[in-house]
Amino acid sequence: MTYLSLSGHTAGRELNRVRATAPLVHCLTNSVVTNFTANVLLAFGAAPAMVVAREEVADFAAIAGALSVNVGTLTAPQAEAIRLAVASANQAGTPWVLDPVAAGPLAFRTDFCRELLDARPTAIRGNASEVRALAGLASAGRGVDSQDSSEAAVDAARALAERCGAVVAVTGAVDYVTDGERVLAIAAGDPLLTRVTGTGCSLSALVAAFLVGASDRLIAVASACATMAVAGGLAADHAPMPGRFAVALLDQLSLIDSAALEGALS
Amino acid sequence: MTYLSLSGHTAGRELNRVRATAPLVHCLTNSVVTNFTANVLLAFGAAPAMVVAREEVADFAAIAGALSVNVGTLTAPQAEAIRLAVASANQAGTPWVLDPVAAGPLAFRTDFCRELLDARPTAIRGNASEVRALAGLASAGRGVDSQDSSEAAVDAARALAERCGAVVAVTGAVDYVTDGERVLAIAAGDPLLTRVTGTGCSLSALVAAFLVGASDRLIAVASACATMAVAGGLAADHAPMPGRFAVALLDQLSLIDSAALEGALS
Amino acid sequence: MTYLSLSGHTAGRELNRVRATAPLVHCLTNSVVTNFTANVLLAFGAAPAMVVAREEVADFAAIAGALSVNVGTLTAPQAEAIRLAVASANQAGTPWVLDPVAAGPLAFRTDFCRELLDARPTAIRGNASEVRALAGLASAGRGVDSQDSSEAAVDAARALAERCGAVVAVTGAVDYVTDGERVLAIAAGDPLLTRVTGTGCSLSALVAAFLVGASDRLIAVASACATMAVAGGLAADHAPMPGRFAVALLDQLSLIDSAALEGALS
Repeated sequence: MTYLSLSGHTAGRELNRVRATAPLVHCLTNSVVTNFTANVLLAFGAAPAMVVAREEVADFAAIAGALSVNVGTLTAPQAEAIRLAVASANQAGTPWVLDPVAAGPLAFRTDFCRELLDARPTAIRGNASEVRALAGLASAGRGVDSQDSSEAAVDAARALAERCGAVVAVTGAVDYVTDGERVLAIAAGDPLLTRVTGTGCSLSALVAAFLVGASDRLIAVASACATMAVAGGLAADHAPMPGRFAVALLDQLSLIDSAALEGALS
Repeated sequence: MTYLSLSGHTAGRELNRVRATAPLVHCLTNSVVTNFTANVLLAFGAAPAMVVAREEVADFAAIAGALSVNVGTLTAPQAEAIRLAVASANQAGTPWVLDPVAAGPLAFRTDFCRELLDARPTAIRGNASEVRALAGLASAGRGVDSQDSSEAAVDAARALAERCGAVVAVTGAVDYVTDGERVLAIAAGDPLLTRVTGTGCSLSALVAAFLVGASDRLIAVASACATMAVAGGLAADHAPMPGRFAVALLDQLSLIDSAALEGALS
Repeated sequence: MTYLSLSGHTAGRELNRVRATAPLVHCLTNSVVTNFTANVLLAFGAAPAMVVAREEVADFAAIAGALSVNVGTLTAPQAEAIRLAVASANQAGTPWVLDPVAAGPLAFRTDFCRELLDARPTAIRGNASEVRALAGLASAGRGVDSQDSSEAAVDAARALAERCGAVVAVTGAVDYVTDGERVLAIAAGDPLLTRVTGTGCSLSALVAAFLVGASDRLIAVASACATMAVAGGLAADHAPMPGRFAVALLDQLSLIDSAALEGALS
């Protein structure tokens, strides 16, 4: 298969579009990454809001620009809140993202993610094991870390995109983003992104931010992935160890601009 | 209206008083900021404790020096725990702080905050939109970030303070703190405080720490606000980007002393 | 009583053993430290997974290399999940660690910790107040911070180890680790470890990682304690303030090797 490349020019145009509007992203995410996810969105220039109670998620999902759903520490009460938020988002035409953390080995969350596919997420972002699991293929995942290379999940991603109408991003050493027809590849990033918890989860929230007002959803999702990957590469240049890297990643997300994306992706 | 200024000398005296006793602050806060709030209190020299279960909040609120309540990710079980903790704090004479995160657009938390006003919080700390909402005025808030300037909420803060007997702090580019009669203004801080999640929420916990053993509650609350604002300004001088700023803020909260407050607020 | 010393050579051999296998640690921990605990494990080179729902904890505890249980923000639903995870770990022969945060002054968690002792944890890691409370002795704790010196709990730790068959680590200015017969002392660390939330809690998760595949559990637990203490000392050398210290601690946990342990503990 040949992959299209996301141009730095296009990604930079998307970055400018998103930052100009500071979209409000409603996050229903896991308990490990709430703080980091909020800080990623704030550093980039978006506005996070973690409204979680079943009594108010539906109201808020209709107010927010986008919704980001992550099942990393799914519980039954959270599943109920997610169902309400997703229904409200769909009714309001609000784009929403599914991050199927550790789908595959655990039946409770995997069944729930499959149920959410029927609600037609606007985008799905996961690692190769998770995307393969959602597509119904065997996977080597043992939890949050993927044991498969991202390329091994491109076919699964395309099938998943076709089946549920979502843009699907498989992130890894190379990110692949597909709408079922086109496949964009983004070769950027740094292995340190896997040594800090929440870089993938917060990317899913950033994907949600990029979907607000997007005219081409494939381009929007890929540009969010490129923004995180390029910021990660720049952060690793400045800070080659995990503690400082996490700090530098936030700094780079605040600094990154269209010129940086053009330089890195050209 | 003319505002009184909080003198650096007074704020410094309060800072020394609080740090000398390392007060134990019981925090019932939102899931996004628990870690940062604990680290803010520890860095400054207070002792945080996040005891959350309805089975033990009442016992702990009576042991702690102060209680800090934050509704940022309110759920029904948490509301039940907060009710028990507040009742126990009131019975024990323990001061407590209400942080009405995103009150206004969301009925569930707004109704709960109004219920808590009847329990007479010792202090309330919020942004302009939240304070206006609690006082029953229209507001431009869309969630956690205020769309109103803090000065636009001074009248609401005074009305709220008079009605429920609390010291009310409206924080923003300038902080205003009132007991319904006097209004103290603190012009310090840095816009980077809005680019890191939890700076306001952790300030509310710091306000709780300053209320332990305070002889003048207006002065205590204003001094806590000044401590965070001045530390934020110093942190921004050292670290002008959000990732490093959050780290530097903790460092500055550990370093800040009465001399720094006298220098910044004179 | 005379204490044996843990040699740097032995600790270094353990460190290399653990890092070579990147063990998967299932954490059921408190809401304040989930992010930091995950980052500590990732920085060192282990793999964290916070699976929390009663619907999947049993399955995951059987997949994971070890389980770490922490009662810092215990609730009734979490207690139920912990019971299921512990039963599954015991059935699968998976080692598990109990961190009895603030046991003593609060009946709900203290009773639950005592119930867990009957399930025979592989190791227990706490401060002096917590270990004394579990052993049934009076303690001066007022919550998460110990008011007792670690040496004052060595007898309690030995009695607890004998009674429930666990390796017990009492950490403080000096760490003491005992299996009821031998007592190993580790004099390393830095007071800054008490100015950042979660250093003890994440050490418990690191203890769990070191127990995976251990041939001598006393040595494994002591080596985990030594790794955190020595990394803490190195971090304090680089970063003498709490914000930067927390970042440097993660960096040092990624850098620390057998040579560093031999140098620090010889």
